[in-house]
Amino acid sequence: MLGIDCGSERTGYGVIESDGGDHRMLAAGVIRTNSKTSFELRLLEIASGLRRLILEHRPEAAAVEEVFYAVNVKTALKLAHVRGVALLTLAEASVAMAEYSALEVKTSVVGYGRAEKSQVQMMVQSLLRLPEMVASEDACDALAVAICHATREATSRRVGAVR
Amino acid sequence: MLGIDCGSERTGYGVIESDGGDHRMLAAGVIRTNSKTSFELRLLEIASGLRRLILEHRPEAAAVEEVFYAVNVKTALKLAHVRGVALLTLAEASVAMAEYSALEVKTSVVGYGRAEKSQVQMMVQSLLRLPEMVASEDACDALAVAICHATREATSRRVGAVR
Repeated sequence: MLGIDCGSERTGYGVIESDGGDHRMLAAGVIRTNSKTSFELRLLEIASGLRRLILEHRPEAAAVEEVFYAVNVKTALKLAHVRGVALLTLAEASVAMAEYSALEVKTSVVGYGRAEKSQVQMMVQSLLRLPEMVASEDACDALAVAICHATREATSRRVGAVR
Repeated sequence: MLGIDCGSERTGYGVIESDGGDHRMLAAGVIRTNSKTSFELRLLEIASGLRRLILEHRPEAAAVEEVFYAVNVKTALKLAHVRGVALLTLAEASVAMAEYSALEVKTSVVGYGRAEKSQVQMMVQSLLRLPEMVASEDACDALAVAICHATREATSRRVGAVR
Protein backbone atom coordinates (compact mmCIF):
# COMPACT_ATOMS: atom_id res chain seq x y z
CA MET A 1 0.00 0.00 0.00
CA LEU A 2 1.39 3.34 -1.09
CA GLY A 3 0.35 6.62 0.52
CA ILE A 4 1.13 9.93 -1.18
CA ASP A 5 1.01 13.43 0.28
CA CYS A 6 1.31 15.81 -2.67
CA GLY A 7 3.14 19.12 -2.64
CA SER A 8 5.07 21.06 -5.27
CA GLU A 9 8.11 21.47 -3.02
CA ARG A 10 7.89 18.25 -1.06
CA THR A 11 5.82 15.20 -1.92
CA GLY A 12 5.73 12.71 0.93
CA TYR A 13 5.38 8.98 0.37
CA GLY A 14 4.92 5.98 2.60
CA VAL A 15 4.82 2.31 1.69
CA ILE A 16 3.27 -0.12 4.18
CA GLU A 17 2.37 -3.76 4.32
CA SER A 18 -0.88 -4.35 6.14
CA ASP A 19 -3.61 -6.88 6.84
CA GLY A 20 -5.86 -4.02 7.88
CA GLY A 21 -5.11 -4.27 11.59
CA ASP A 22 -1.41 -4.85 11.68
CA HIS A 23 0.73 -2.43 9.69
CA ARG A 24 4.43 -2.48 8.86
CA MET A 25 6.42 0.30 7.26
CA LEU A 26 8.45 -0.68 4.20
CA ALA A 27 9.58 2.76 3.10
CA ALA A 28 8.87 6.40 3.73
CA GLY A 29 10.39 9.62 2.56
CA VAL A 30 10.03 12.80 0.63
CA ILE A 31 10.51 13.68 -3.03
CA ARG A 32 12.03 17.13 -2.84
CA THR A 33 12.02 19.29 -5.93
CA ASN A 34 14.53 21.92 -6.90
CA SER A 35 13.03 25.30 -6.05
CA LYS A 36 15.17 26.95 -8.72
CA THR A 37 13.70 24.98 -11.61
CA SER A 38 10.46 25.75 -13.42
CA PHE A 39 7.18 24.32 -12.23
CA GLU A 40 6.89 21.87 -15.14
CA LEU A 41 10.35 20.47 -14.43
CA ARG A 42 9.36 20.06 -10.79
CA LEU A 43 6.33 18.09 -11.94
CA LEU A 44 8.70 15.93 -13.96
CA GLU A 45 10.89 15.32 -10.89
CA ILE A 46 7.81 14.28 -8.90
CA ALA A 47 6.57 11.96 -11.66
CA SER A 48 10.01 10.35 -11.96
CA GLY A 49 10.24 9.88 -8.20
CA LEU A 50 6.82 8.28 -7.97
CA ARG A 51 7.46 6.03 -10.98
CA ARG A 52 10.68 4.82 -9.37
CA LEU A 53 8.82 4.09 -6.12
CA ILE A 54 6.04 2.21 -7.90
CA LEU A 55 8.56 0.17 -9.86
CA GLU A 56 10.48 -0.71 -6.70
CA HIS A 57 7.57 -1.57 -4.42
CA ARG A 58 4.86 -2.56 -6.91
CA PRO A 59 2.00 -1.53 -4.60
CA GLU A 60 -1.38 -3.06 -5.40
CA ALA A 61 -3.16 0.05 -4.15
CA ALA A 62 -2.48 3.68 -3.37
CA ALA A 63 -4.16 6.37 -1.31
CA VAL A 64 -3.89 10.09 -1.91
CA GLU A 65 -5.21 12.92 0.22
CA GLU A 66 -7.84 15.18 -1.34
CA VAL A 67 -7.03 18.82 -2.03
CA PHE A 68 -8.00 21.06 0.82
CA TYR A 69 -8.73 24.51 -0.54
CA ALA A 70 -10.15 26.48 2.36
CA VAL A 71 -6.82 28.09 3.16
CA ASN A 72 -5.37 29.47 -0.05
CA VAL A 73 -6.72 28.94 -3.54
CA LYS A 74 -3.38 29.59 -5.24
CA THR A 75 -1.63 26.97 -3.10
CA ALA A 76 -4.51 24.54 -3.65
CA LEU A 77 -4.26 25.01 -7.43
CA LYS A 78 -0.52 24.32 -7.39
CA LEU A 79 -1.12 21.23 -5.30
CA ALA A 80 -3.83 20.09 -7.74
CA HIS A 81 -1.27 20.19 -10.59
CA VAL A 82 1.01 17.91 -8.58
CA ARG A 83 -1.92 15.69 -7.64
CA GLY A 84 -2.85 15.35 -11.32
CA VAL A 85 0.66 14.11 -12.02
CA ALA A 86 0.50 11.69 -9.08
CA LEU A 87 -2.84 10.26 -10.23
CA LEU A 88 -1.41 9.90 -13.75
CA THR A 89 1.58 7.86 -12.54
CA LEU A 90 -0.80 5.57 -10.63
CA ALA A 91 -3.09 5.16 -13.64
CA GLU A 92 -0.08 4.44 -15.90
CA ALA A 93 0.99 1.63 -13.58
CA SER A 94 -2.57 0.35 -13.09
CA VAL A 95 -2.38 0.92 -9.34
CA ALA A 96 -5.88 1.11 -7.80
CA MET A 97 -6.43 4.50 -6.24
CA ALA A 98 -8.43 5.78 -3.28
CA GLU A 99 -8.88 9.33 -2.04
CA TYR A 100 -9.48 10.56 1.48
CA SER A 101 -10.01 13.96 3.02
CA ALA A 102 -7.65 15.10 5.77
CA LEU A 103 -10.61 14.74 8.13
CA GLU A 104 -11.11 11.09 7.17
CA VAL A 105 -7.40 10.33 7.56
CA LYS A 106 -7.20 11.90 11.01
CA THR A 107 -10.43 10.25 12.12
CA SER A 108 -9.12 6.88 10.97
CA VAL A 109 -5.61 7.20 12.41
CA VAL A 110 -6.10 9.32 15.54
CA GLY A 111 -9.85 8.84 16.08
CA TYR A 112 -10.41 12.57 15.96
CA GLY A 113 -10.85 14.58 12.74
CA ARG A 114 -9.35 17.78 14.06
CA ALA A 115 -6.23 16.15 15.50
CA GLU A 116 -2.96 18.11 15.57
CA LYS A 117 -0.02 17.19 13.34
CA SER A 118 1.90 15.97 16.43
CA GLN A 119 -0.94 13.62 17.38
CA VAL A 120 -0.90 12.15 13.87
CA GLN A 121 2.89 11.69 14.14
CA MET A 122 2.54 9.90 17.48
CA MET A 123 -0.21 7.60 16.24
CA VAL A 124 1.68 6.77 13.04
CA GLN A 125 4.74 5.88 15.14
CA SER A 126 2.62 3.77 17.46
CA LEU A 127 0.60 1.98 14.74
CA LEU A 128 3.75 1.11 12.79
CA ARG A 129 5.65 0.29 16.00
CA LEU A 130 8.54 2.53 15.03
CA PRO A 131 11.39 3.22 17.45
CA GLU A 132 10.90 6.94 16.90
CA MET A 133 8.58 9.48 15.31
CA VAL A 134 8.72 9.97 11.53
CA ALA A 135 10.54 13.29 11.42
CA SER A 136 9.16 14.53 8.10
CA GLU A 137 5.56 15.70 8.34
CA ASP A 138 5.08 14.97 4.64
CA ALA A 139 6.28 11.37 4.92
CA CYS A 140 4.19 10.96 8.07
CA ASP A 141 1.04 12.28 6.35
CA ALA A 142 1.68 9.87 3.48
CA LEU A 143 1.97 6.96 5.92
CA ALA A 144 -1.22 8.13 7.64
CA VAL A 145 -3.26 8.10 4.43
CA ALA A 146 -1.86 4.63 3.60
CA ILE A 147 -2.85 3.35 7.06
CA CYS A 148 -6.28 4.95 6.68
CA HIS A 149 -6.85 3.15 3.38
CA ALA A 150 -5.54 -0.20 4.65
CA THR A 151 -7.88 0.01 7.66
CA ARG A 152 -10.89 1.05 5.58
CA GLU A 153 -10.30 -1.65 2.99
CA ALA A 154 -10.09 -4.33 5.69
CA THR A 155 -13.27 -3.01 7.32
CA SER A 156 -15.21 -3.09 4.06
CA ARG A 157 -13.91 -6.62 3.37
CA ARG A 158 -15.11 -7.69 6.82
CA VAL A 159 -18.50 -6.02 6.33
CA GLY A 160 -18.71 -7.78 2.97
CA ALA A 161 -17.95 -11.13 4.59
CA VAL A 162 -20.62 -10.65 7.28
CA ARG A 163 -23.33 -9.75 4.77
CA MET B 1 3.78 25.89 -31.93
CA LEU B 2 1.30 23.90 -29.85
CA GLY B 3 -1.57 25.51 -27.95
CA ILE B 4 -3.43 23.57 -25.28
CA ASP B 5 -6.75 24.39 -23.65
CA CYS B 6 -7.08 22.04 -20.68
CA GLY B 7 -10.28 20.46 -19.47
CA SER B 8 -11.12 17.15 -17.81
CA GLU B 9 -13.86 16.36 -20.33
CA ARG B 10 -12.42 18.05 -23.38
CA THR B 11 -8.85 19.23 -23.87
CA GLY B 12 -8.50 21.36 -26.96
CA TYR B 13 -5.30 21.52 -28.99
CA GLY B 14 -4.08 23.54 -31.90
CA VAL B 15 -0.83 23.28 -33.83
CA ILE B 16 0.29 26.24 -35.91
CA GLU B 17 3.28 27.26 -37.95
CA SER B 18 4.10 30.93 -37.55
CA ASP B 19 6.72 33.59 -38.15
CA GLY B 20 4.97 35.77 -35.60
CA GLY B 21 2.88 37.69 -38.09
CA ASP B 22 1.74 35.05 -40.50
CA HIS B 23 0.13 31.96 -38.99
CA ARG B 24 -0.91 28.69 -40.56
CA MET B 25 -2.94 25.94 -38.91
CA LEU B 26 -1.41 22.47 -39.08
CA ALA B 27 -3.84 20.66 -36.80
CA ALA B 28 -6.59 21.36 -34.30
CA GLY B 29 -8.97 19.21 -32.36
CA VAL B 30 -10.16 17.97 -29.03
CA ILE B 31 -9.05 15.12 -26.79
CA ARG B 32 -12.36 13.87 -25.41
CA THR B 33 -12.29 11.65 -22.32
CA ASN B 34 -14.78 8.97 -21.43
CA SER B 35 -17.10 10.41 -18.79
CA LYS B 36 -17.79 6.93 -17.45
CA THR B 37 -14.18 6.23 -16.47
CA SER B 38 -12.47 7.37 -13.30
CA PHE B 39 -10.71 10.72 -13.13
CA GLU B 40 -7.22 9.17 -13.08
CA LEU B 41 -7.97 7.17 -16.23
CA ARG B 42 -9.19 10.36 -17.89
CA LEU B 43 -5.88 11.98 -16.98
CA LEU B 44 -4.16 9.03 -18.64
CA GLU B 45 -6.26 9.48 -21.80
CA ILE B 46 -5.28 13.16 -21.90
CA ALA B 47 -1.58 12.41 -21.35
CA SER B 48 -1.64 9.76 -24.10
CA GLY B 49 -3.39 12.12 -26.49
CA LEU B 50 -0.92 14.94 -25.86
CA ARG B 51 2.08 12.62 -26.13
CA ARG B 52 0.80 11.38 -29.48
CA LEU B 53 0.38 14.98 -30.69
CA ILE B 54 3.87 15.98 -29.54
CA LEU B 55 5.40 12.95 -31.23
CA GLU B 56 3.58 13.67 -34.45
CA HIS B 57 4.17 17.42 -34.68
CA ARG B 58 7.35 17.84 -32.60
CA PRO B 59 6.52 21.45 -31.61
CA GLU B 60 9.48 23.51 -30.42
CA ALA B 61 7.24 25.44 -28.04
CA ALA B 62 3.85 25.21 -26.39
CA ALA B 63 1.46 27.65 -24.77
CA VAL B 64 -1.10 26.80 -22.12
CA GLU B 65 -3.78 29.02 -20.64
CA GLU B 66 -3.56 29.76 -16.92
CA VAL B 67 -6.21 28.44 -14.56
CA PHE B 68 -8.98 30.93 -14.01
CA TYR B 69 -10.51 30.32 -10.61
CA ALA B 70 -12.92 33.16 -10.08
CA VAL B 71 -15.90 31.10 -11.21
CA ASN B 72 -15.86 27.81 -9.35
CA VAL B 73 -13.04 26.51 -7.17
CA LYS B 74 -13.99 22.85 -7.63
CA THR B 75 -13.91 23.17 -11.42
CA ALA B 76 -10.63 25.10 -11.22
CA LEU B 77 -9.07 22.36 -9.07
CA LYS B 78 -10.12 19.67 -11.54
CA LEU B 79 -8.69 21.71 -14.38
CA ALA B 80 -5.45 22.18 -12.44
CA HIS B 81 -5.06 18.38 -12.24
CA VAL B 82 -5.37 18.18 -16.04
CA ARG B 83 -3.01 21.12 -16.43
CA GLY B 84 -0.43 19.39 -14.25
CA VAL B 85 -0.58 16.40 -16.59
CA ALA B 86 -0.28 18.66 -19.66
CA LEU B 87 2.76 20.45 -18.23
CA LEU B 88 4.31 17.09 -17.40
CA THR B 89 3.95 15.81 -20.97
CA LEU B 90 5.62 19.00 -22.22
CA ALA B 91 8.46 18.72 -19.71
CA GLU B 92 8.95 15.04 -20.61
CA ALA B 93 9.37 15.98 -24.27
CA SER B 94 11.53 19.05 -23.47
CA VAL B 95 9.03 21.37 -25.17
CA ALA B 96 9.50 24.96 -23.96
CA MET B 97 6.39 26.19 -22.25
CA ALA B 98 4.67 29.55 -21.86
CA GLU B 99 1.57 30.47 -19.90
CA TYR B 100 -0.97 33.18 -20.60
CA SER B 101 -4.08 34.37 -18.84
CA ALA B 102 -7.36 34.37 -20.78
CA LEU B 103 -7.13 38.17 -20.68
CA GLU B 104 -3.71 38.14 -22.36
CA VAL B 105 -4.87 35.71 -25.03
CA LYS B 106 -7.96 37.76 -25.90
CA THR B 107 -5.98 41.00 -25.86
CA SER B 108 -3.42 39.49 -28.21
CA VAL B 109 -5.86 37.83 -30.62
CA VAL B 110 -8.89 40.14 -30.57
CA GLY B 111 -7.28 43.28 -29.19
CA TYR B 112 -9.75 43.39 -26.34
CA GLY B 113 -9.35 41.42 -23.08
CA ARG B 114 -13.05 40.97 -22.44
CA ALA B 115 -13.88 39.72 -25.92
CA GLU B 116 -16.72 37.23 -26.38
CA LYS B 117 -16.07 33.63 -27.40
CA SER B 118 -17.56 34.32 -30.84
CA GLN B 119 -15.17 37.23 -31.41
CA VAL B 120 -12.23 34.96 -30.58
CA GLN B 121 -13.60 32.38 -33.03
CA MET B 122 -13.89 34.98 -35.78
CA MET B 123 -10.39 36.35 -35.20
CA VAL B 124 -8.86 32.88 -35.11
CA GLN B 125 -10.56 32.06 -38.42
CA SER B 126 -9.36 35.33 -39.93
CA LEU B 127 -5.77 35.13 -38.62
CA LEU B 128 -5.39 31.54 -39.83
CA ARG B 129 -7.23 32.32 -43.09
CA LEU B 130 -9.57 29.38 -42.60
CA PRO B 131 -12.54 28.83 -44.93
CA GLU B 132 -14.83 28.57 -41.90
CA MET B 133 -14.89 29.05 -38.14
CA VAL B 134 -13.32 26.42 -35.92
CA ALA B 135 -16.46 24.77 -34.62
CA SER B 136 -15.07 23.50 -31.33
CA GLU B 137 -14.59 26.24 -28.74
CA ASP B 138 -11.88 24.19 -27.05
CA ALA B 139 -9.86 23.73 -30.23
CA CYS B 140 -10.37 27.42 -31.03
CA ASP B 141 -9.14 28.50 -27.58
CA ALA B 142 -6.09 26.28 -28.04
CA LEU B 143 -5.34 27.89 -31.42
CA ALA B 144 -5.82 31.33 -29.83
CA VAL B 145 -3.25 30.70 -27.10
CA ALA B 146 -0.82 29.34 -29.72
CA ILE B 147 -1.30 32.48 -31.87
CA CYS B 148 -0.86 34.65 -28.76
CA HIS B 149 2.45 32.99 -27.95
CA ALA B 150 3.73 33.11 -31.54
CA THR B 151 2.93 36.83 -31.72
CA ARG B 152 4.50 37.62 -28.35
CA GLU B 153 7.63 35.66 -29.12
CA ALA B 154 8.10 37.47 -32.41
CA THR B 155 7.56 40.83 -30.72
CA SER B 156 10.15 40.12 -28.04
CA ARG B 157 12.59 38.96 -30.73
CA ARG B 158 12.04 42.20 -32.64
CA VAL B 159 12.49 44.29 -29.48
CA GLY B 160 15.69 42.37 -28.82
CA ALA B 161 16.95 43.11 -32.34
CA VAL B 162 16.28 46.85 -32.04
CA ARG B 163 18.15 47.18 -28.75
